[in-house]
Amino acid sequence: MTRLAILGGGQLGRMLALAAIPMGVEICSLDPTGAAPAGAVSELVVGGLDDVVAVARTAAGASVVTYEWEGVPATSTRHLETHGSVVRPSTRALEVSQDRAVEKTTFTALQIPVAPWAAVDARDGLDSALARIGSPAILKTRRGGYDGKGQAIIDSPDAADAAWTDLGPAGELVLEGMVDFERELSIIAVRSVDGEVRSWPLIENQHRGGILRVSRAPALRVTPELQELADGYASAVLHHFDYVGVLTIELFQVGDALIANEMAPRVHNSGHWTIEGAATSQFENHVRAVLGWPLGRTAAIGASAMINCIGHIPEPIDLLGIEGVHVHAYGKSARPGRKVGHVTVTADSVADLEPRLAAALAALPADDG
Amino acid sequence: MTRLAILGGGQLGRMLALAAIPMGVEICSLDPTGAAPAGAVSELVVGGLDDVVAVARTAAGASVVTYEWEGVPATSTRHLETHGSVVRPSTRALEVSQDRAVEKTTFTALQIPVAPWAAVDARDGLDSALARIGSPAILKTRRGGYDGKGQAIIDSPDAADAAWTDLGPAGELVLEGMVDFERELSIIAVRSVDGEVRSWPLIENQHRGGILRVSRAPALRVTPELQELADGYASAVLHHFDYVGVLTIELFQVGDALIANEMAPRVHNSGHWTIEGAATSQFENHVRAVLGWPLGRTAAIGASAMINCIGHIPEPIDLLGIEGVHVHAYGKSARPGRKVGHVTVTADSVADLEPRLAAALAALPADDG
Repeated sequence: MTRLAILGGGQLGRMLALAAIPMGVEICSLDPTGAAPAGAVSELVVGGLDDVVAVARTAAGASVVTYEWEGVPATSTRHLETHGSVVRPSTRALEVSQDRAVEKTTFTALQIPVAPWAAVDARDGLDSALARIGSPAILKTRRGGYDGKGQAIIDSPDAADAAWTDLGPAGELVLEGMVDFERELSIIAVRSVDGEVRSWPLIENQHRGGILRVSRAPALRVTPELQELADGYASAVLHHFDYVGVLTIELFQVGDALIANEMAPRVHNSGHWTIEGAATSQFENHVRAVLGWPLGRTAAIGASAMINCIGHIPEPIDLLGIEGVHVHAYGKSARPGRKVGHVTVTADSVADLEPRLAAALAALPADDG
Repeated sequence: MTRLAILGGGQLGRMLALAAIPMGVEICSLDPTGAAPAGAVSELVVGGLDDVVAVARTAAGASVVTYEWEGVPATSTRHLETHGSVVRPSTRALEVSQDRAVEKTTFTALQIPVAPWAAVDARDGLDSALARIGSPAILKTRRGGYDGKGQAIIDSPDAADAAWTDLGPAGELVLEGMVDFERELSIIAVRSVDGEVRSWPLIENQHRGGILRVSRAPALRVTPELQELADGYASAVLHHFDYVGVLTIELFQVGDALIANEMAPRVHNSGHWTIEGAATSQFENHVRAVLGWPLGRTAAIGASAMINCIGHIPEPIDLLGIEGVHVHAYGKSARPGRKVGHVTVTADSVADLEPRLAAALAALPADDG
């Protein structure tokens, strides 16, 4: 039986496993906690992602190793690669996505626009960066930020001190010019071992408090040219890294232009709608890609939306009476700010989707709404 | 966390678990073998389905008990019911489906046509039944037959002795007139705790050697009247039993009429296409129904076909290059005549489906083709 190792056992790993198992694949996951969401559907090794012994134990007997979190230490995947494991996507893609400065440099080298930015390593460097980029701007840690963590908005030069107090101790930072964007989009694409690339339709994302709240797919008002532009950016990154698997790029739309915010070398929260809303889900195609199998169709089925359930586990009985709704709960305990599930709303058309989405939002707890 | 117990741990239980887990449901399965397909995705109690201690252990802590095989002894489900468990569908529906004679009587009482038939308990009873029904006819065991097992075709009265030698020792039998049908169809429907009924489009089934080989859905050349007729038959059975869950009725089409062959009080092999080919799969809707949750849409998405993989585990790498193909392997070892997986072929239209289906059939091993 084909065996796939996944570094990280969160909801992304759980959904990867749920896509892989039907295809006859055996999954072994590594997670620091025994209560990891992937544990319900895979063999679980409990250990640190930086613990090369635990990592090696997870990979033992697996034809391929993949990861569900970009925070996996590159030392772990490189250790596997040097000991003969096939790691997909490669350590190089993982490393680049872990460093905002290198990521932006890579985008620029591939002629993918990014917001004006500067590396900031000292207090006076922040001042000169602010003078060059202007405010408002966002100070971010180069490494380790997610869901709005590790970020501070600098509205005016006066706010620089507070931001520095907050993030300066973190060491390496970047200052990014705030993009006056119309909306946030994401492009999710997958590349096979043979170099074939397929992408899902552009997705429109609404964040709240730095956390993705609602995704709509296909995004409305997307011209063929805009989709092609996004596909081209995704392809450029995928081919650059000889990448195998699913990659996500978060984008800002400004008129006809797309500005890359960041990339994630993995399946992505904004692609959860693909489980019900696309011919092949991001999870199934990631598994197919990393195992060296041909890719599936990425076309959307009608119109879909996805609502993240943050801090409250969704109650199926309250939601499933809304036509077109599917409920996902990750088997996590609820904590404020924690993603514990999501709700997908599907319909044949956008006109049918909107009232269902409104009903689903209304049926979720107030803190979630 | 909601906990669901499933009696039987075969591929149907595995696919029920794979539909339930994303909704945050915990599954406990009972199966006589430790290598049961459901074991990869659920807590598995290894024990006989007739072992009330094992059955009770499986049901412990579960809000609802369901089953994935109509061979589960009614003594087991009744034991649970008398000890306070909620069993869905009910023991009564299970019992009726286990006895061809009672099943046919029930169909007739609900004005659902069946082939001419007679109970046969003795050798001379077979002669008088043959005289009344004529030949060709099929002698079947009243209980326990599946996939063509426990059946003998009687082409002419001369063949009665051989059929009797074969099946007489089994005890209670029925003789059924052979229906000169145009095609075999199945209707799969689901009923909620509230009595709501939804049905999937009629499915066309092709058998070989008594085993389902290919299902196509929606079946072609189905008039709204024919679908309505099938829906009405399914509804009649569902309401009759105050049934909760998915029910399947196998049908023969003769002109504008539908003749009921048999019913299965469970998700069905001819409904596997619903995983990718319908808005909600039979597995998800069965789980939703038995847990008392609202039902999902049963509309087909484009055109689908399902090929059973019998005796040979499908190789994803050989099949997934065909557009619209999804591969399911049940984690079983291969044996001749054993269902070990299935392949679903999806397309936007029948015109696109047929060449893909032909390609998938050609890509499967010769014994399977």
